[in-house]
Amino acid sequence: MTIWCDVSARSFDSAGMPTVTMIGGGQLARMTHQAAVALGQRLRVLAERPDDPAAQVTPEVVLGSHTDLAALRKAAVGSHAVTFDHEHVPTEHLAALVAEGVNVQPPPGALIYAQDKLAMRRKLSELGVPVPAFAPVESPADAAAFAAEHGPFVLKAVRGGYDGRGVWMLDGPAEAERVARDQLAHGVTLLAEQRVDLRRELSAMVARSPFGQAATWPVVETVQRDGQCAVVLAPAPDLPAALAAEAETLALRLAQELGVTGAMAVELFETRDGAILVNELAMRPHNSGHWGMDGAVTGQFEQHLRAVLDYPLGDTSPLAPVTVMANILGAAQAPAMSMDERLHHLFARLPEAKVHLYGKGERPNRKIGHINILGDDVAEVREKAERAAHWMSHAVWTDGWDPHE
Amino acid sequence: MTIWCDVSARSFDSAGMPTVTMIGGGQLARMTHQAAVALGQRLRVLAERPDDPAAQVTPEVVLGSHTDLAALRKAAVGSHAVTFDHEHVPTEHLAALVAEGVNVQPPPGALIYAQDKLAMRRKLSELGVPVPAFAPVESPADAAAFAAEHGPFVLKAVRGGYDGRGVWMLDGPAEAERVARDQLAHGVTLLAEQRVDLRRELSAMVARSPFGQAATWPVVETVQRDGQCAVVLAPAPDLPAALAAEAETLALRLAQELGVTGAMAVELFETRDGAILVNELAMRPHNSGHWGMDGAVTGQFEQHLRAVLDYPLGDTSPLAPVTVMANILGAAQAPAMSMDERLHHLFARLPEAKVHLYGKGERPNRKIGHINILGDDVAEVREKAERAAHWMSHAVWTDGWDPHE
Repeated sequence: MTIWCDVSARSFDSAGMPTVTMIGGGQLARMTHQAAVALGQRLRVLAERPDDPAAQVTPEVVLGSHTDLAALRKAAVGSHAVTFDHEHVPTEHLAALVAEGVNVQPPPGALIYAQDKLAMRRKLSELGVPVPAFAPVESPADAAAFAAEHGPFVLKAVRGGYDGRGVWMLDGPAEAERVARDQLAHGVTLLAEQRVDLRRELSAMVARSPFGQAATWPVVETVQRDGQCAVVLAPAPDLPAALAAEAETLALRLAQELGVTGAMAVELFETRDGAILVNELAMRPHNSGHWGMDGAVTGQFEQHLRAVLDYPLGDTSPLAPVTVMANILGAAQAPAMSMDERLHHLFARLPEAKVHLYGKGERPNRKIGHINILGDDVAEVREKAERAAHWMSHAVWTDGWDPHE
Repeated sequence: MTIWCDVSARSFDSAGMPTVTMIGGGQLARMTHQAAVALGQRLRVLAERPDDPAAQVTPEVVLGSHTDLAALRKAAVGSHAVTFDHEHVPTEHLAALVAEGVNVQPPPGALIYAQDKLAMRRKLSELGVPVPAFAPVESPADAAAFAAEHGPFVLKAVRGGYDGRGVWMLDGPAEAERVARDQLAHGVTLLAEQRVDLRRELSAMVARSPFGQAATWPVVETVQRDGQCAVVLAPAPDLPAALAAEAETLALRLAQELGVTGAMAVELFETRDGAILVNELAMRPHNSGHWGMDGAVTGQFEQHLRAVLDYPLGDTSPLAPVTVMANILGAAQAPAMSMDERLHHLFARLPEAKVHLYGKGERPNRKIGHINILGDDVAEVREKAERAAHWMSHAVWTDGWDPHE
């Protein structure tokens, strides 16, 4: 069936409610659309493909690349704010949009610290914010020298890397030199960062409006697997109150000092001696904030829209003592059982599971959805959420349950 | 700007997730779309106008009337279930769709009891379910005779009336005869119903799947103004546990006996002597269930989708001791202050307010949105929700607050 919908022909009586353009049509834009619907706003997305997660569910889709200034302009026309589903828009394009009067939020001058890992580390060091030891890597010798001085370290692409892509864990000078040579030959700009003896990873999320209002969510623990976020525990279990306050204060301070607007995740390392170091910044809704869609009065997608449009921010209180988020990740081989059948079984076993699917095909380790479960006991809630997500990924129950018995 | 989106050209890799067609493009379809996004489903709507609330926010819109069988067929093609945003689809069209193999949920044989108020009352009487005294009114004399026997009564259109439309409160035989004559002359089929000396109105909501699984939400109190729902208190304050259980059991029984699928609201009168009588049935998401979008683990829109697609149902537990829903109703005269500015002020005063706007123009007493607030104390939460909704309707704070002072 063919359905033609001409957006210009729709005479909306939306009483002057704003339109927000989101660059990128991934799951973050998809979930932002759900929040925009409630607020009476219109979300327009710039998507690369018509089957991108957000393009499937929102009527205002501009097809094009985030690296194409013409496409960015087309997506921005007439919208009240332009914001992002990812960090990959070239800085010069953002500058061009701003020069043309487009309301880009977060502003390019802030976003650069989420785009350029070296600029971020330099800026944070300048601000006296603790980060692991780091150095630019402009030659294989730089990498070898860093390895010699700091021991095991992480080599990171300065731009473009996320979700474990563009990150190499290296153990010695020889390997460091080899990987650096290979990447530099491909034109990748690199930095080296000392590996931290960490207890765990945390995330402090905050949203800030152009007016300067800011609100944090409780600090969460993020559990990484295969270099990407797998599970989030909200709030971070057994986090000393002083450290939680320090992390939230740090997020608020960074949001202000960097001029961030919208949602920002400050990814942190908690060291074994009880300190926190900044790992990465993301200036957009972030995987570590998905728990709040079901577990907080105001989730990150609504808050991001409120923040970029300069509305007063929403209450971020949790709705339960514990919320656990577990990502549904594509299995190495997609199960024979359809996603739809898996969902039936999941709902039969765990009626309390809140499922969010992104409309993406199953590819190994790809984030294709997530599950939130609320409750009182973190071990119990985590077991349920991980069991649910593993089932949706693999069609295998981790506790041996057989639906056909 | 013109954006063409050709739905047939979109090659979705949605891994066989279902498409649901909803007949009617109002706010119920709009909010169902939000739930469909999370579940990885596609919601297609049959909307009369391109600016209908749901048509604004979902890409798959079939434009046409619910009274046009060709439009209904077009909307139904290839979808896994056809369901409803209202009760106004002609029964013969539903029968035609079913005959053609369309999966209509709820089935026409159940839906008739939400469409035809006389059939409902006869059926419920047959089942021994308490309803107010009623009689068909086929002549002005019937109305006068009913008035003479029962005193003050309500004249209702047998079909098509909802939200207070098609309902006349009448005090004596002369007025009864006059209104009945006028309506009958316009071809309206009528029934008379005794006015009940009621303590308050309640709503017992339930969802049921074709498989036969059913789940209730806590019974709520609905506060009516100008003949339509204005406020919902969830759960109904001070409702004796036995009466709450009776109401939930009644809803479950009716869902089963009538063969209902999807969400159903059983609107009830609680009499001063502590009995309950059935007022109306709605077989779709219902205003009395809006609180659950923010206040329950599984809200009615998700549950309705799960039910019509025969998924196991979700947990209906409340997330807070009290949730109050207040409708934003169009004022007699739309305020000079824009809806957007009102929203800014609302968010500034009540960061805990959950706002749902429908993208509708402001017309007197029209439901244009609603607000949910969660909390512990019903009086306090109700005051906030009503204050918030009144502000959004009228741009006047009921407590005299002046944002410009």
